[in-house]
Formats: sequence, structure tokens, C-alpha cells
Amino acid sequence: MALIVQKYGGTSVADTERIQTVAERVVSIAKEGNQVIVVVSAMAGETDKFIAFAHKITEHPDEREMDLLLSSGERVTSALMAMAIQELGQKSMSFTGRQVGIITDSSHTKAMIEEIEASRLKIALDEGKVPVVAGFQGINEFQDVTTLGRGGSDTTAVAIAAALKADACEIYTDVEGVFTADPRIVPHARKMEKISYDEMLEMASLGAKVLHGRSVEFAKKYNVPLVVRSSFSQASGTLVTKEEGSMEKIVVTGVTHDKNQARITIMGVPDRPGIAASIFKSVSDANINVDMIVQNISNVDHATDISFTVSRADSKKAFDIIRKVSDEMGTKGVNMNPEVAKVSIVGVGMQSHFGVAAQMFETLARNSVNIMMISTSEIKISCVIDEKETEKAVQVLHDSFELAKQ
Amino acid sequence: MALIVQKYGGTSVADTERIQTVAERVVSIAKEGNQVIVVVSAMAGETDKFIAFAHKITEHPDEREMDLLLSSGERVTSALMAMAIQELGQKSMSFTGRQVGIITDSSHTKAMIEEIEASRLKIALDEGKVPVVAGFQGINEFQDVTTLGRGGSDTTAVAIAAALKADACEIYTDVEGVFTADPRIVPHARKMEKISYDEMLEMASLGAKVLHGRSVEFAKKYNVPLVVRSSFSQASGTLVTKEEGSMEKIVVTGVTHDKNQARITIMGVPDRPGIAASIFKSVSDANINVDMIVQNISNVDHATDISFTVSRADSKKAFDIIRKVSDEMGTKGVNMNPEVAKVSIVGVGMQSHFGVAAQMFETLARNSVNIMMISTSEIKISCVIDEKETEKAVQVLHDSFELAKQ
Repeated sequence: MALIVQKYGGTSVADTERIQTVAERVVSIAKEGNQVIVVVSAMAGETDKFIAFAHKITEHPDEREMDLLLSSGERVTSALMAMAIQELGQKSMSFTGRQVGIITDSSHTKAMIEEIEASRLKIALDEGKVPVVAGFQGINEFQDVTTLGRGGSDTTAVAIAAALKADACEIYTDVEGVFTADPRIVPHARKMEKISYDEMLEMASLGAKVLHGRSVEFAKKYNVPLVVRSSFSQASGTLVTKEEGSMEKIVVTGVTHDKNQARITIMGVPDRPGIAASIFKSVSDANINVDMIVQNISNVDHATDISFTVSRADSKKAFDIIRKVSDEMGTKGVNMNPEVAKVSIVGVGMQSHFGVAAQMFETLARNSVNIMMISTSEIKISCVIDEKETEKAVQVLHDSFELAKQ
Repeated sequence: MALIVQKYGGTSVADTERIQTVAERVVSIAKEGNQVIVVVSAMAGETDKFIAFAHKITEHPDEREMDLLLSSGERVTSALMAMAIQELGQKSMSFTGRQVGIITDSSHTKAMIEEIEASRLKIALDEGKVPVVAGFQGINEFQDVTTLGRGGSDTTAVAIAAALKADACEIYTDVEGVFTADPRIVPHARKMEKISYDEMLEMASLGAKVLHGRSVEFAKKYNVPLVVRSSFSQASGTLVTKEEGSMEKIVVTGVTHDKNQARITIMGVPDRPGIAASIFKSVSDANINVDMIVQNISNVDHATDISFTVSRADSKKAFDIIRKVSDEMGTKGVNMNPEVAKVSIVGVGMQSHFGVAAQMFETLARNSVNIMMISTSEIKISCVIDEKETEKAVQVLHDSFELAKQ
């Protein structure tokens, strides 16, 4: 008998018919003699609807109120899912974040889990029930509702799997697993059988939307075996697990891309200590996340160019801030390209293989894709390119590294 | 400085614009130096949407799950309302039923309030905040969410007003108060300035949908002055309060009607002890509420006719049950009229005035309205008539008792 935590995302529970389909899957796994805990997201579109309501009322919604608002969608799904499972003759019971005992800090809208006191869950399992947990939420020390940020239901599932030492944590979504590239761009992209936590983390942060980075970090920390699979098929999915010897043979695991990018360049920045710090402080003070930062060594006139990327939604705001800062510093000017994309290759094998970066750059160059910025880590290389070249870049890189082969 | 509890129903908070309008009203009352507690319903249509979801999944939803589902709508409104009040520069904070400390019994979907531990509410008031309470919900001893039944947000408001000894409890709705008859049927119907708890109770149970009976009972028990008024105007509304000397001068206070009725008659029921009990037990076992029951004395062949009314939605189910029971008893048959209505006159003055019933029957007869069943209490007389005659009956009774006059 295994203990399995299954998390179903918004598209998997988008309407009552899909909830019933999920219930059938859950019950069949329970009937095989397993203990199952189900974690659910809000029905697709609900969370966005709530956010739109809040923004009609105020530009800056209070975060405590935002959390009460946003947590409602998952509660609705958990009640409906428990009913659907019961309807199939299987005992079941819904749990809110509070009833599970998910205690978080008080950082409303992006709370961190501090503790899971899962005694009611254990009692329900002992009674032969399938607990259905409302994902994405907990409570803080004041008994106020908190939410865990986007992708928070994944984190709920992994945290419960860690707390109860579950045999597996399955993340159900609308794709069949993690692919070597986006199958809409590379039709012969291959579904991976296995991927390491670190590779998955890079892929998640680089734009592969299948799993949220925070839940992967959590899974890595507590060594929870994660399986990404589709709720619309019986395909086996992708196992995200700790790095194994066999993985190292593969140099590059996958190609990812992210079109939600804009590049800002400040030209002729005076070469003084602390100057980069003051630039980026002004941006972060406006709650804008900077992604890649590239600065070259100073040229002869003791000035340098600094480029960075931000999400496209933040680009106008960031550009205005940077123009102001830049005037005060006496730079040679600021320019922005709001239509760039980031293309990356990821793989743990890269660390011990020479020539991977060269092969990437050469492949792009041979196909006339101009590279604007480069950033590397131990297991990934990212290039910023013109957005229009994204599909071509992903396709030629996927071919060049022969990712369609097992 | 007064402490005022204000409850806003679903139509008053149906969208973000209406929520903002309500917030303006709340803030203006707070700015006059009053302490205000706001209780909100779900946005109009939300609760019905949740019920439809549940019934798509199962014919008999688990009531614990139903409560988690149904309680979500009020939480959404409370968060949005708190944001809207804050946006106007007034401190505010949402409260769930649990956070208010509304402890109920475990009768899911129709829980009774056992206790209100309102310490967090008091702290918020002392801090100059406007608490916004999600209506309709509490928690039981197991920390599970319970709901108070339809009209439950009214009950929440009255219970909080009673617990905090508020100066008034204002129930905001889409009509300007309690009228002597439905203004859609009697255009010159008069808005009452005052009505007693008992009269309001009869009017509520007889089909005037403006206030839920349970909240009136609660208000009567704790002597909470209730005001029914519109959130769409500044009109003063109707005060529901304890009976006063001046009220007795008025014999009939109002005319109500309820079209949601069906009549079932069992003919030739053998006159044996316990026979009525066994008939109505079979109906209540099917969770069907019987409203009026009329039984005449037995005729010469020791058999009697029994008629009763049920809500139209339950009528088919009730008819099938009664046919079966009736066969077993050997009656002379069963018939049903699914298109009847109940028209009633209400007034505390009736108790000490002769001739009110006679005037009612005569008025209906003179206008060719046939009376099928009659039922009376100390302060009301109800007649079941053909549904098609409803409007005429209400109009002629309203005129006959001169209700348009102050």
C-alpha cells in the first residue's frame, strides 16, 4: 500500500465534468489499495476573475484581504471534488489549509510554510477517507488566511507529501510531462522519463510553465519524488528526482524559451563603485524583478554599458525609472527593446562538458539568429534574442543537441 | 456615537460598482462618528451557481461539503468590501465566521448559532476599523464550516447586533422597506414606518421575501431593533420592533401572497386515530415541508377529506408518496392542484377585533375569488385560492382594509 499525494491544476478541474473525471481516476487508485490525498487548485479562470474584481476596486488591494479573496476558489473545488469522490462510493472529506494545519508566516500573497500539523489528515486516512485539500493556502499565527503565491497548490502538495513521507507526489496538469522543448514549437520534442531537481528548477525559471520553481525547491529539500503527468491521459509522465549517475551522460536535457521579456540598456555608465547597486535598487524599490544582468568591463573612457531584462509587463515602468536615474548619473542614454525573448539550454551534464556554449552560439549564428545578451550558470546557458527568432532558435537548438533521441 | 450593524444582501453587492456604492454609504456613516459593522451576503447569483455545480455532481451532496462550498461566496464579498472601504481612506478589515467567533451546532446547511465570541470584532472597533463580516456562516466544535440556511446573513447581522448590544441592525435590500402589499401588484401599497416582530414573522412566513423569519425571531428574542431599508436610496425604511400600544389601533397591517404553492387533497380518509400522523410522517420523511393542513370533521360514513399545501417544487414528489400511502389506507383517492396561491392578511389588531375574517371572505366572494382552504392564527388569516386570481385578491383586500391610508 502506497501513500500518494495527487495535485490537480485549474484546467484539470475547470468544470464539474472534469472534476468527475478526476474523481474516477482518484477512486480507481484508491481501490487498488493505495492511500490517496488530493490537492486541488481553483477552477480555471476563477483566480483571475477575483484579481480583476479587486483591481476594479483599488489599484493597491490590501494583501490580507487579497488572500481571503484568492483562497476562496480552492475551497469551492475541494468541496465539489469531495462530493464527486463520495458519489462514486468512496469515503472522502474536504480540508481547508487551516484544517490541514498548514501554518505559514504572515507574508500575505506569498507566504512561506513554517509547519504542517497534519493530524486531522492522518485520522481521515486511517478512517479510509480520501482527503481533498484546498491548495495554495494556509493560516498565520493570527488565524488569518494566507496564500502561497502563484503555483502555490504545487507547493501545498509537495509540503504535504514531505510532512507525511508520501511515496510519491503526482502533479496533474494539461500536458503529459516535461518535454525537451515546447511541443507546439518542436513537434518532435521528446517527453523526458526523468529529470533532476536542479534541471527542473532551471527549466521552471526559464519559462517551462509545467511546474512552479518553489515546489521543486521544496521537493529537492525534502527529497520528495515528483511526477508530472496529464489528467487527460494515462501516460506515465516525467519523474523529477535527485540527480543520478545515468543522468550525466546526457549533456543537454532540454531547450526552453520565454517570450515575456524586455531588454533595457544604459549606455556610458560612469565606472564608480556602487553605481550598479543604485541602479538596481531604484528598480527593486518599485517591486520590479530584474532577470538577467550583463555588464562588460569598462572601456577606455572609464564608462560601461549595463543591460538587463525585465518582464514585458514591467518594462514601461522600469524604463521610466531607469531614464530618471540615468539622467542623474550623467550616462550617455538609455534604450529599450520590448520585444526580445530568452532561449536557454539546460542540463546537468554541461558542467563536465566543454564546447556546449560554443555549440549553442555557433548553431544560432549559422541560422542567422543574433545574440544580444548571454548569461550562464553551471547547468544552463541563456541567450537573449529578437522575439521573432524564438521558434527558429528553439528548433535548431533542439536538433543540434539531438534532444529527440532518447 | 452609535454602534450600527448593517447587512447588505446579494443584489446590493452584485458587482464591484455596487460594492463601491455601499462602501461610500458605510464610510459616510462612520465619518459621522458612528461605529459600523458590515455583514455581507454573496454576490447575487453566486450561491445559486454553487448549488447548481453540486447538483451536477450528485443528487445528494454531503452537507458538510455543501457548507464549505456555499460559505465561499460571502468570503469573497467581505474581502472586496473591506478593500472598497479602505480605498475611501477608512480603516477596515474582513472577518470570516470563524474569525468573528460564531460557534454553531453541527446541523450542516441549517446550523443554529450557539455562541458568539466577538473579542476580535471589539478590538477592531476600538482600533477605529470597520469590520466586514462574511455572513451566513460559522464553525462547529470540530472547526468545520457551517452555514445558517437561506437568509442566514440576516441572522448573522442580528446575532452580532445582539452580542454587541448594537443600537440598531439595518438590513439593506433592494426594496425600500416592508409594504402593506407587494407594490408590483398594488401600486399604491404603502411603506410601513413600523411593524411588530410578530407581524413581521407572519409576513415573512407568508411570502413577503424582505426578511427571513429566523432573523426576526432572533431579533425578537434579544429585542434588537431591526430596520429594513434600500441600499439604492436614502429612504428611511421600516422599523421592526416590539409591539407598542399605538400599533393596536390598526387592525390589519398588510396583505401577503405566495404563489409557490400546490394543494393535495386525500378524499375519504378512514376516521381512525393516528391516520393523519402516518400520512404526514411519510411526507416529512422525504424532507418535504407541509405548510397549511385542513381537515374537516368526519361525515356520516366515518371518513374525512384532508387537504394540505406544499411548495410547488416538492409537489410531484409529495403527490407520488401520498398516492402510495393513500392506496394502503383504502381512501377514496387523491387529487392535486399544482397551481394555487396563498393570500393572507396580517395584523396584531386582529386579536381584539371581530369581523375581520368575515370581511376578508366577503371581499373575496364579492370579487368572485373562490376560497379552497382557510387557515388562521391569532394575527393572520390565510386563504388558498386559484393562482390566476392572486393579483385581484391582493388588490381588493388591500382596498377593503384601507391599507393605503396611514
